[in-house]
Amino acid sequence: MKKNIGSVLALYPTPVVVAGTMINQKPNWLLVAHVGIIGHDRIMISCAKQHYTNKGIKEKGAVSLALVNEAMLPNADFVGSVSGSKIDKSEVFSYLVGDYGVPIIEEAPLVMECSVEDIYDFDNFDNFILKIQNTYAEPSVLSENGTVDYMKIKPVLFDMPNYEYIRTGDVIGTCLKLGK
Amino acid sequence: MKKNIGSVLALYPTPVVVAGTMINQKPNWLLVAHVGIIGHDRIMISCAKQHYTNKGIKEKGAVSLALVNEAMLPNADFVGSVSGSKIDKSEVFSYLVGDYGVPIIEEAPLVMECSVEDIYDFDNFDNFILKIQNTYAEPSVLSENGTVDYMKIKPVLFDMPNYEYIRTGDVIGTCLKLGK
Repeated sequence: MKKNIGSVLALYPTPVVVAGTMINQKPNWLLVAHVGIIGHDRIMISCAKQHYTNKGIKEKGAVSLALVNEAMLPNADFVGSVSGSKIDKSEVFSYLVGDYGVPIIEEAPLVMECSVEDIYDFDNFDNFILKIQNTYAEPSVLSENGTVDYMKIKPVLFDMPNYEYIRTGDVIGTCLKLGK
Repeated sequence: MKKNIGSVLALYPTPVVVAGTMINQKPNWLLVAHVGIIGHDRIMISCAKQHYTNKGIKEKGAVSLALVNEAMLPNADFVGSVSGSKIDKSEVFSYLVGDYGVPIIEEAPLVMECSVEDIYDFDNFDNFILKIQNTYAEPSVLSENGTVDYMKIKPVLFDMPNYEYIRTGDVIGTCLKLGK
């Protein structure tokens, strides 16, 4: 018998990303785990309006989203703990600049460079609707046929109710074959 | 040196849910992994317009979202493989009916009952913006203080590029402490 525990945001774990943009010619980073997928080629990231990064995303009309592996997690956690309006976080990660003028983290296993297509405004959040323009991947995280191998990245996941980072586990099986 | 592999939807793994609604007094189920979080109390699920379930979600103005554990995965995979317009899937899961008239899966560890607040229309997808009204959890997946314990649920995750189900792994550590 289930217990009704009220209105609980329980859709976890979700993948953590470092969102990167440029503000005054310097990179700024924001840790985001309230993300989503729309259709087959759009990403949504939900950012409280007071974040310093939002200004940069709107000005550039672009943002980079880096998957986080365990090696870069301490720095990713750090950029999530302080605002770019107070501390210059520009040197936390090494970076190159992508085609759309946003910083691509060198330490990250995979970075999607996205253009802003729309903003779904809700409450105190800018929900950026993004189109993926370029995907920069370390060759070591690609499989032989060129697809992204999540067992090589093992993206860090987030769980809000316990405020913890969680590991990506192993493969269970192939979709639409288990139920036959 | 990163390789640019073009526009790749690479934000994975994401949590898989079984979306449940009622159509003609019978439950229908849809497997969804293109999901997201908006703000601190909204969920977005992205469903191609041709799905039979969309009709039910619109008529009821409500939908249930069940996290999937490994025990129920074969049945969850099955409901993702066939359309409710062709096969009656109503008996795949046991269920009770929630306050908002949608089916709550008994085999699931946790089910959120949601009202439809908005639809973000994009391309061929209904992106339902949902407010969580009730959360029905098995007492065995709650910690002593009543929060959801993801190590007890181990939600099944999805990876589109390889079309695989992935396990939730272990806890790495607490957020905003690793970067200090």
